[in-house]
Amino acid sequence: MTDILKGMRVVEGSAFVAVPLAGMTLAQMGADVIRFDRIGGGLDAGRWPLAPSGQSLFWAGLNKGKRSIAVDMKSERGKELVTQIITAPGEDAGMFLTNLRVRGWMDHATLSQYRDDLIMVTLTGDRHGRPQVDYTVNPALGIPDITGPVGHAEPVAHALPAWDCIAGNMIVSALLAAERHRLRTGEGQDVELALKDVAAAVMGHLGLIGDAVVNENKREKSGNALYGAYGQDFVCACGTRVMVIGLTSRQWAGLVKVTGTSDAMDSLARRTGRHLDDEGARWTLRDDITAILKPWFAARRVDEFATAFDKAGLTWSRFRTIKEAVAEDPDLSDENPIFKVLHQPELGRFPVPGTPMNFSATDRQPPVAAPALGADTEEILGDVVGLPDAEIAALFDHGVVQSPRFAAARTAA
Amino acid sequence: MTDILKGMRVVEGSAFVAVPLAGMTLAQMGADVIRFDRIGGGLDAGRWPLAPSGQSLFWAGLNKGKRSIAVDMKSERGKELVTQIITAPGEDAGMFLTNLRVRGWMDHATLSQYRDDLIMVTLTGDRHGRPQVDYTVNPALGIPDITGPVGHAEPVAHALPAWDCIAGNMIVSALLAAERHRLRTGEGQDVELALKDVAAAVMGHLGLIGDAVVNENKREKSGNALYGAYGQDFVCACGTRVMVIGLTSRQWAGLVKVTGTSDAMDSLARRTGRHLDDEGARWTLRDDITAILKPWFAARRVDEFATAFDKAGLTWSRFRTIKEAVAEDPDLSDENPIFKVLHQPELGRFPVPGTPMNFSATDRQPPVAAPALGADTEEILGDVVGLPDAEIAALFDHGVVQSPRFAAARTAA
Repeated sequence: MTDILKGMRVVEGSAFVAVPLAGMTLAQMGADVIRFDRIGGGLDAGRWPLAPSGQSLFWAGLNKGKRSIAVDMKSERGKELVTQIITAPGEDAGMFLTNLRVRGWMDHATLSQYRDDLIMVTLTGDRHGRPQVDYTVNPALGIPDITGPVGHAEPVAHALPAWDCIAGNMIVSALLAAERHRLRTGEGQDVELALKDVAAAVMGHLGLIGDAVVNENKREKSGNALYGAYGQDFVCACGTRVMVIGLTSRQWAGLVKVTGTSDAMDSLARRTGRHLDDEGARWTLRDDITAILKPWFAARRVDEFATAFDKAGLTWSRFRTIKEAVAEDPDLSDENPIFKVLHQPELGRFPVPGTPMNFSATDRQPPVAAPALGADTEEILGDVVGLPDAEIAALFDHGVVQSPRFAAARTAA
Repeated sequence: MTDILKGMRVVEGSAFVAVPLAGMTLAQMGADVIRFDRIGGGLDAGRWPLAPSGQSLFWAGLNKGKRSIAVDMKSERGKELVTQIITAPGEDAGMFLTNLRVRGWMDHATLSQYRDDLIMVTLTGDRHGRPQVDYTVNPALGIPDITGPVGHAEPVAHALPAWDCIAGNMIVSALLAAERHRLRTGEGQDVELALKDVAAAVMGHLGLIGDAVVNENKREKSGNALYGAYGQDFVCACGTRVMVIGLTSRQWAGLVKVTGTSDAMDSLARRTGRHLDDEGARWTLRDDITAILKPWFAARRVDEFATAFDKAGLTWSRFRTIKEAVAEDPDLSDENPIFKVLHQPELGRFPVPGTPMNFSATDRQPPVAAPALGADTEEILGDVVGLPDAEIAALFDHGVVQSPRFAAARTAA
C-alpha cells in the first residue's frame, strides 16, 4: 500500500483476474475501491486455490484493501443503489471498472445520465464483445505452440494467466489516463479494451507477428532456452537445476570466464566460423554451447559456484517449486518490505504482498486483507449513498443488501 | 495511437522488454516519448526475432511512435545533453523511465539538481538492485514447476516474457500516478520497482503463495486444463485441437447441453456423490469429464460444431500456430481497428498494432513505426535542448551524437 492515489474513489463490478487485479492495484496505491457483488458472491467467490476451510485464497488475493458491498441486483432498488454508488459525487470519484457490463442499466450511456463526467473502463473478451478467457485467447494466438520441451508434439498452455495480468495493469493505466484527461477538460468517457486485443497487441509489440509474416521458418519450441541469444538450464551435481543467462556480451563473457570454457568456446567459434559475441550466433549454436557447459555444471554442486557466480555478477537463478521458493527465498517473506505476514481468519497465516511500486514521496503502508463479502455494506450505504440509518435497516430487512454481521444475526435468531 | 496523453513528454533510457514497452505504451497513448541510445544502438538493438535483412523486429515493435536520439554517453558533453533532455522544462515534461540507471550522473538525486520536480521510474532486476531477467525470475519463483504436460518430470518455462510485460504496464501506471501527485503538489519523486517483486506480488495476488503455505498438497502440472474448474483441450476428427471452457455454471451447462452429455454427467455425479455445478468438483473429476467428452470431439470436425458452439454462447477457441493465427484470424489483421498493415523498410509488410485501449473522448490514430536509431537526433537537440544549428552541427562533427542521415553522408563522402 501507498498513499499516492489517496482521495480517489473507484467502483468495481467484476469477476476473475483482470478487473479485480486492476481494482486491487488501485486500492494498494491508496484509492478507495468499492467492489459490489451479488448477495452470496460473484462468479469468482469460490475460485481456486482454496484454503482448507473452503474459502478462496484467490478471491482474498485479488480483493485486498477494497471495500465490499453485497446487493441484490435483480431488484430495482438494488440496481438503483449500485447506480448511486457508481455515480456518487466527488471530484475524485465517478470512476467505474467492469468486465460484467449489463446492457441497459449498467452501460455508459445510462450511467452518464446521473453523472456526465463518469469514466467507465470495460474489459470484454474480444472486440466483438464475446466472452473470452486467458485459456482461450492464448491457444487462438499461438503461444502454446511455441511453449514446451524441444520436439514436444503438443501445444503447452502457460500456467500463469499472463494476458489477464497484463490487461489488469493496462486497465489501471487506462483509468489514470482518462482521469488525467478529465482533470484538464472536465470530460468523462467510455474506455473499452478486449482481452484478445491486449494479447494480440503485445504479440505484435514483441515482434512475433512480424516474424510470422516475413520469415519463412516457423518459430519452434525451444524448451527452457532463452530465445534469440544464450540462456539455458543445467542440472548440477546436487540435483538442483539452475538457469544461466548469456544475453548481453557482458553476461556471456562472465559465464565463459567463470566456467573456464573460453578455449572450448574459441574452438567452437573457429570450427563454425561464427563470432560468439554475436547474440544470434549464440542462439544458432546453443546446442554446441550447452554441450560444452553441461559437464561443468554436472560436476559441481550449486553451493560450490553460487558465490563465484554472484561475485562475477552473472545473471542466474535456481529452479524451485513454489513451496520451495516460499520456504527459501527471503524475497517472498517479510524480509522484503513489500510483503507482510498476515493472519487471515479461515485462510491462515502467510506472506501477503503490497504493491511492488516504491514511491519516494509517500510512505509504504502494509497490505490490507480483503474484506468479507459485504463487510462494508452498511458503511457504503451511509457514507457514499448518504442513506439514513432507518432506510439502511429496511434494505437489510427486505434482502436488498447483505452483510456478514446481518447474515450472522439472522442465523442466530 | 490515441491523443489521450497528448502534450506529455517522457524520456526513456532502456533496453529489452519492460521499460521499452512502457515507453511505447505511453507513445501509443499520445505522449512524446524520447528514447536515447548510445551510438550504434543499445543492448537490445539486435534482439531477435530479426527480419531477413538482419534488422530487429523486436526493436521495431517495442519502439513504435517514439523519437530516437543517439548520443555518445561516454563523453562529458553526451552526458550533459542527456541530462538536459531529461530535465528540460515544461509542465508536462520532466519524466524519465529507465532500467539502465548509471550511479552518478543518471541517478535521481543528481538529475533533480537540474529539475527538482523530476519524476523518475526505475526498474531493477531484484530489490537489491541486481540484474534479473524474466528467464531467471520465473524459475526462481516456481512457475515452470507447475507448467507443462501432466506428469512431465521437468520444469517448463513460459515462452511469453509475461513478467516483463506486466512490469512494463505497471511502470506506465506508476508514472501516471506520480504525475497525478505532481499536478496536485508540485512534488517530483523517485519511483522504483523490481522485476522479481512484480512477479512475487502477482503470485501472491493470485493466491499461489497462500496455497503453497496453507495447503499440504503441492500444486502439480495440469497440462492444458483450466485450473480449479473445468476447461480442456480436445482433438477433433479434422485434426484441429480446440480449447473448451466450463468455468462458470453457465459455460458448463452450455457445454453439457450442446454436446448432449447430460446423462453421462448425471451418472458421473451420482457415482461420485459430487455436484458438477460445483466448480471444485469439476476440477477434481476433470479426467472423468474429459473421458466423457473426448469421443464427442473425436467424432466431429470443428466446422461441424463451430456455429452451434457460437450460437450457444460457449467460450472456446481453436489452437493455432502464430503463422496460422496471422493468416486466419481477422483479429490479427487490419479488419481489427487496432491493427494497420505497414510497410517498413528493411522489415517488410505486416500488421502492426496500436494501443488496445479505446478512449471514447479521443479518436484512434493509426500506429506509427519505430524510428531508425538516432532519426530524431537533430530535431531533439533543437526543440528540446534548444541548441542553435551551428552547435548541433559541431556535435555531429565531433561524434557526440549520430543520426542515420549523418552516418550516410559520412559513408558517401
